[in-house]
Amino acid sequence: MAQSTARNAERDAAQAEEGAARNLTLLTDLYQLTMMSGYLKNGKQNDIAVFDLFFRRNSVITYSVAAGLEQAIAYIRSIRFTEEDIAYLRSLGLFEEPFLDYLRTFRFTGDVFAVPEGTVVFPEEPILTVRAPLLEAQFVETALLNIVNHQTLIATKAAKIAYAAAGGEVMEFGLRRAQGPDAGVYGARAAVIGGCGSTSNVLAGRLFGIPVSGTHAHSWVMNFPTEYEAFKAYAHLFPDACLLLVDTYDTLKSGVPNAIRVFKELRAAGHEPKGIRLDSGDLAYLSKRAREMLDEAGFEKAIICASGDLDERVIASLKNQGAKIDLWGVGTKLITSADLPALGGVYKLAAVQAPGGGMIPKIKLSDNSDKITNPGFKQVYRVYDKKTGKARADLIALRGEAFDESKPLTIFHPVETWKRTTFTDYTLRPLSVQIMKGGELVYGFPSLSEVCAYAAREKETFWSEYRRQDNPHVYKVDLSEALYSVKNKMIAEIRAENG
Amino acid sequence: MAQSTARNAERDAAQAEEGAARNLTLLTDLYQLTMMSGYLKNGKQNDIAVFDLFFRRNSVITYSVAAGLEQAIAYIRSIRFTEEDIAYLRSLGLFEEPFLDYLRTFRFTGDVFAVPEGTVVFPEEPILTVRAPLLEAQFVETALLNIVNHQTLIATKAAKIAYAAAGGEVMEFGLRRAQGPDAGVYGARAAVIGGCGSTSNVLAGRLFGIPVSGTHAHSWVMNFPTEYEAFKAYAHLFPDACLLLVDTYDTLKSGVPNAIRVFKELRAAGHEPKGIRLDSGDLAYLSKRAREMLDEAGFEKAIICASGDLDERVIASLKNQGAKIDLWGVGTKLITSADLPALGGVYKLAAVQAPGGGMIPKIKLSDNSDKITNPGFKQVYRVYDKKTGKARADLIALRGEAFDESKPLTIFHPVETWKRTTFTDYTLRPLSVQIMKGGELVYGFPSLSEVCAYAAREKETFWSEYRRQDNPHVYKVDLSEALYSVKNKMIAEIRAENG
Repeated sequence: MAQSTARNAERDAAQAEEGAARNLTLLTDLYQLTMMSGYLKNGKQNDIAVFDLFFRRNSVITYSVAAGLEQAIAYIRSIRFTEEDIAYLRSLGLFEEPFLDYLRTFRFTGDVFAVPEGTVVFPEEPILTVRAPLLEAQFVETALLNIVNHQTLIATKAAKIAYAAAGGEVMEFGLRRAQGPDAGVYGARAAVIGGCGSTSNVLAGRLFGIPVSGTHAHSWVMNFPTEYEAFKAYAHLFPDACLLLVDTYDTLKSGVPNAIRVFKELRAAGHEPKGIRLDSGDLAYLSKRAREMLDEAGFEKAIICASGDLDERVIASLKNQGAKIDLWGVGTKLITSADLPALGGVYKLAAVQAPGGGMIPKIKLSDNSDKITNPGFKQVYRVYDKKTGKARADLIALRGEAFDESKPLTIFHPVETWKRTTFTDYTLRPLSVQIMKGGELVYGFPSLSEVCAYAAREKETFWSEYRRQDNPHVYKVDLSEALYSVKNKMIAEIRAENG
Repeated sequence: MAQSTARNAERDAAQAEEGAARNLTLLTDLYQLTMMSGYLKNGKQNDIAVFDLFFRRNSVITYSVAAGLEQAIAYIRSIRFTEEDIAYLRSLGLFEEPFLDYLRTFRFTGDVFAVPEGTVVFPEEPILTVRAPLLEAQFVETALLNIVNHQTLIATKAAKIAYAAAGGEVMEFGLRRAQGPDAGVYGARAAVIGGCGSTSNVLAGRLFGIPVSGTHAHSWVMNFPTEYEAFKAYAHLFPDACLLLVDTYDTLKSGVPNAIRVFKELRAAGHEPKGIRLDSGDLAYLSKRAREMLDEAGFEKAIICASGDLDERVIASLKNQGAKIDLWGVGTKLITSADLPALGGVYKLAAVQAPGGGMIPKIKLSDNSDKITNPGFKQVYRVYDKKTGKARADLIALRGEAFDESKPLTIFHPVETWKRTTFTDYTLRPLSVQIMKGGELVYGFPSLSEVCAYAAREKETFWSEYRRQDNPHVYKVDLSEALYSVKNKMIAEIRAENG
């Protein structure tokens, strides 16, 4: 990941501009503010707390691609309560003046650690960790979750779709079905981190430099007396990028024959057509017939693009049926992550700093055992096989634990502890890096194309057995012995207290 | 719906401020711009087109609550291509200078018709209709769909959840799981239109005047030496609004007993506690036991609030099990509309204006018959029973058709045409009203609380048979005879042309 002071300065300016334009400071849940006012009243403003942001195991996601860090940090750095914000909070009748005064100069002064965007992450692993004065760490919870949950979700869905497309380019087409403007814009950003090649979203293109793509709609065809005239006008407009939508009236009887007629005229005028797009009907059958018709007419290089309610399952099925589709336009099901529209990320207290400076681990128990948290200030290590360079397992450890790569490493399943694996020829890589220190940015954000390249390399370090659609191999995410024993000791103590 | 020039002026100022702060002009698909450049090149800039925004039949939504109009219109009115936008578009290498020049002064100058926010609408019915110069009508497609799709989806989901809660108040708690900041903020707005009573989202509270709600998190409890001390500190902070989260360690053995201890201290000091919140575990069992414990301790009026992966099905099931829950905090599944995360709304060309001034209907055929559109410039009429005031059926008609309420009205199913119903003692209400005329706002937006009150009345005009969760009665949405015959004539003609 490139570190560049110049890029940071540029980004700072852009973020300051965005921050000034749009004050998202109040993008929080009311209870953060009520708790903060309570912490202040109880003299806890100098307590230091550590919170982890992670997502829990679910049946849909086996691996995920972290995204949203840049916007999350921009939020943290832009926090400013305006006088209007404070007047509004006063109007709620919940807060005392000393607290409202405190908000007036409120800034984030803590530390942030996170995995870089594009990193492959698994359930339970901290994507982001905040170590900060308790009130500040508490305040940023909701916005961090909102931003990281959303972008990680969409990047993950895009990774699954790109995997199914197996090298065929995927275009993100979902803006009209996204859950509001931000879901479209930041969803497009996350989609390219996950593996999409372009977006139809012009604002996302402008803001992030993502390649934009698109041709014409059915209404274009309907606005000319005939389909042929509509195609001809479009070819005239973009003679070297002519991709025609052929399903307005009848794909095989009208659309494809009219497209071929126009393609012949284009070629006669010295241009090569780009291809056709199918947006409805049986895409397997239509693409095969259209391929034959294009080939017979001498347009073997014209591509066939498909769109219309696609996702990773439909794409895999079309590929299995031998559909002749080169390019995939994926909208609704990608931009909403339709089969799992929320990542379910949470932000949980992991430790508080003792008066002497050490960390006191904290745990949350629950009647649902999946909701029990991992205590302590932690780091995640990825174990790579030295020979293949492939990832073998992840180890969640307490920060400060030392590992000696020259010695064998034995890891064990956190519940079925008899399941053990020993690595000998391995390297360890800590996933999380420091992003902010004492409220200052200490990380050079890579450009979006650097993030995309990194994400592509990340995915390549995982065997396809972990990434396949059905019954993927479960990637091991274990706890270090030290973390395991702290956790179990704390559970036992609390259980004993409650009889 | 109140019309108020003063309110409009206020809103204009707020919208101008928002528009200046955040330029969403490029929130569009690239193909809108490529098509526009083609229309301009083909001399179609003075053509007038009519587009309808509607959603198609699906298996999840049987009725929906329209929302998002105010933001959609704000978008239309704020469209301005800045020099930076134009420089970006030039950099794509797709557009000629005359088109980029044209964009420099581009404004929306057309008409908009729409159903007021909070109106109950059904599949195929135009929620919004644009009649404008072709390029303008085309340009606004993506943003209108994005905004109206999202808010209508969430308002509809909220209506289903509020129906299941059957009078118990529903609080919107989803910001952290929303698909980005806008999804949280405008989702909260839509949720209250659909029937929620409050939101945890402070920014939504400030922007729209929605009541905000919330208490404390598990981390509050974990930040005190004991649960009892945490509860005591919270009670001290909000002695008259003390609602305690009781599931951090053990709901029945620790949480509820500690809450009762603090409640007794509160009462001794002259305050009445508000109640407790359950956020995990078996909510049916825990709420019943907690109710007994609270009642035995003399806190019969303390409420029990529940949260944690709730939706309309879980709420209905809990009610069937006799759960003692007074207040519902609904997050993820509401704010993402988890079982249907996209409404699937579309925006389709319905007519173009003939050189003489009349309207030429347009239709889109498809290999999928559900995707065939209703041609023409249309209005939707709701048929009410005069005696009960309840809605009986909707009739989609061509604008200009006259109906005589003193005569019987026979409607028929658009596919199974032998299914006929005749109304005698009825009134007709046109659903769509004019919002913009020649680019100017001609509609007085009601306040959000007026929208909510109107939405509540709207829902009351539908028998619960249409609103129940399982196997609801299908509400009739038929076409007028005139529209039916135009549509079928056009289908037959196009089919004949294509052999």
